[in-house]
Amino acid sequence: MALIVQKFGGTSVGSVERIRNVAMRVAKWRAAGNQVVVVPSAMAGETNRLLALAREIQPNPNPRELDVVASTGEQVTIGLLAMALTELGVKARSYTGAQVRVLTDSAFTKSRIVAIDQDRLRADLEAGIVPVVAGFQGIDAEGNITTLGRGGSDTSAVALAATLKADECQIYTDVDGVYTTDPRIVPEARRLKTITFEEMLEMASLGSKVLQIRSVEFAGKSRVRLRVLSSLTPPDLPIDEEAVSGTLITFEEDENMEQATISGVAFNRDEAKITVTGVPDRPGIAYAILGPIADANVDVDMIIQNASVAGFTDFSFTVHRNDYDKAMSIVRKVTPEIGAKDVVGDNRICKVSMVGVGMRSHVGIASQMFRTLAEEGINIEMISTSEIKISAVVNEKYLELAVRVLHRAFSLDQPQ
Amino acid sequence: MALIVQKFGGTSVGSVERIRNVAMRVAKWRAAGNQVVVVPSAMAGETNRLLALAREIQPNPNPRELDVVASTGEQVTIGLLAMALTELGVKARSYTGAQVRVLTDSAFTKSRIVAIDQDRLRADLEAGIVPVVAGFQGIDAEGNITTLGRGGSDTSAVALAATLKADECQIYTDVDGVYTTDPRIVPEARRLKTITFEEMLEMASLGSKVLQIRSVEFAGKSRVRLRVLSSLTPPDLPIDEEAVSGTLITFEEDENMEQATISGVAFNRDEAKITVTGVPDRPGIAYAILGPIADANVDVDMIIQNASVAGFTDFSFTVHRNDYDKAMSIVRKVTPEIGAKDVVGDNRICKVSMVGVGMRSHVGIASQMFRTLAEEGINIEMISTSEIKISAVVNEKYLELAVRVLHRAFSLDQPQ
Repeated sequence: MALIVQKFGGTSVGSVERIRNVAMRVAKWRAAGNQVVVVPSAMAGETNRLLALAREIQPNPNPRELDVVASTGEQVTIGLLAMALTELGVKARSYTGAQVRVLTDSAFTKSRIVAIDQDRLRADLEAGIVPVVAGFQGIDAEGNITTLGRGGSDTSAVALAATLKADECQIYTDVDGVYTTDPRIVPEARRLKTITFEEMLEMASLGSKVLQIRSVEFAGKSRVRLRVLSSLTPPDLPIDEEAVSGTLITFEEDENMEQATISGVAFNRDEAKITVTGVPDRPGIAYAILGPIADANVDVDMIIQNASVAGFTDFSFTVHRNDYDKAMSIVRKVTPEIGAKDVVGDNRICKVSMVGVGMRSHVGIASQMFRTLAEEGINIEMISTSEIKISAVVNEKYLELAVRVLHRAFSLDQPQ
Repeated sequence: MALIVQKFGGTSVGSVERIRNVAMRVAKWRAAGNQVVVVPSAMAGETNRLLALAREIQPNPNPRELDVVASTGEQVTIGLLAMALTELGVKARSYTGAQVRVLTDSAFTKSRIVAIDQDRLRADLEAGIVPVVAGFQGIDAEGNITTLGRGGSDTSAVALAATLKADECQIYTDVDGVYTTDPRIVPEARRLKTITFEEMLEMASLGSKVLQIRSVEFAGKSRVRLRVLSSLTPPDLPIDEEAVSGTLITFEEDENMEQATISGVAFNRDEAKITVTGVPDRPGIAYAILGPIADANVDVDMIIQNASVAGFTDFSFTVHRNDYDKAMSIVRKVTPEIGAKDVVGDNRICKVSMVGVGMRSHVGIASQMFRTLAEEGINIEMISTSEIKISAVVNEKYLELAVRVLHRAFSLDQPQ
């Protein structure tokens, strides 16, 4: 008997029929002798409907009140899903974040979970009851309703799995797992049966938006086995097949001995790069440039500063294309103040990255990557590396080509 | 400075525009120096939408889960209304039933309020904040979400007013007060400026559905001044005018010295009467007949048993027309068992009632009522009286005529 936390996204519970399917799926896992905790999102479209209502009242809604309104989406789903389970003869009971007591901080609309009381859930599980817990929401120390922000239901599920020391946290979604790259660009892209948390973090932040990055971080930190799997398979799929479907996100060291060198090719469209040239090489320069950018709430992705020549260096960073104009005007103001020479920018770039834990112990990955791109005549404009990732900035027109040739060069279409 | 609880029904908060109007109205009372607690219902149609969703999942929804789903309607409104108040510069803060702590029993879908914590509300009021409290909902001792059943928002408002010892509980609705009778039948029907709780109870239960009967009972018991007034007047109506509009439901003895003899003519359509004839006059007969009726969940209205003649009596009662067939078949089974002679019924009757506290000290009301009906050739089939009410059952075809002639005979179209 295993203890499993199952999370179902908004599309999976988007209609009465789909809620019934979710109930069938949960019933199947219960019937196989597992203890199950279910965490559904709001029905697809419901959160947006509520946010739109709020914005009609207040263009910038009061955050505390916005959470009161937004949290009702999940509250409706937990009640309906508990009913659907009851209708199938499965004992079930719904809980809001406040009822479980999912304690969060008071950062309305983007709270973080501080602690989860497990008494009620444990009692239910021992009594054979399936607790149906509202994702995305909690309560702060003063009893105010809070939400975790977009995608927070994934985080709720992982946090519950960590608290209850669940054997697995299953995230049902409308994709059937994590791929070596985007199948729309490379049709031979292959589903990964396993991937490490670190790789998943790099893949997620680089554009493979299967799971919310925060929930992956949380799962890695809490050592929760996480499985992404499809809610589009038949609800009565034999449990043996479902149990090994999707992609398992593992703890690298103990579960992933036969890790392949490279797991996938990730990419970010819609990037823009800004370079400040002739920057005097002295302490505080990076902060002088990026401080005002951060103050303007512009997220910075890559940051590159090369070794200085004759006391001057070039300083580059990338931002989302939507923030390009804003960032440029800030940097243009800063440039004379710090005695730099000029600012140049390009908002037609993209980033292509190779990700893989195996990279650590295999030399030559970078050189193979650069050679592959060079053979296609793709100029690399910027390079940045981490322990398990190499990213190259190239002109956006090469994005698809770069991803395809790298996927082939590293034989990612071959089984793991 | 007064402390006022203001309740707004579903139509009054049925759109973003109307929620803004409610906020303007509340802001006006605040600006005049009053402390205000607001209790809104769910947006019109929302509760029905949620119940329909639940019934699609489970034809007889699990009551605990139904309350989880249904309570979200009011939760959305409190958040939106608190935002609308904030937008007008009025400090406001929303509370669910659980957050206030409106403690109820555990009778899901029809709970009763046991106690209300006033600490948070008091603190807010003293800090100049308008608490916006979700009507219709509470929480039981185990932390389960409960609802008070249809119309429960009125009860929530009255209970809050009682707990906080508010100066007045104002129920804003889409009528502008309580009338001497239904204006659709008698165009000269006049709005009552005041009415006693007892009269209101008789009027409400007899068909003038302005307020939920439970909330009126509660207000009377808790000695809360209750005012029914219109949410359709301009939100910027001068506060002096709004404060004396509608109908004030008063404590008879201390506020209503100049009480008129009769307050109004109430009526019930869609009644049916059942008479058991030749009933042996012995103890336990009434229970033998009505016990099985109650067991079948049929509500009984009038019950009449006349003095017996030669050891036998006739026993009559009225039920809603929808329950007529069910009640008849039950009574037909009971009749031979108790040695009664026969059962006769009529499902084409209605009930017309004169209501007035003044009736107590004025003889001759009944005789004037009967004479008025006789002069129009209206046969009275059954009569029942209480201290402040006389009801007559007549053939349903006479309903409008009876109400009109009685309204005129008692000069109800003249000012109080």
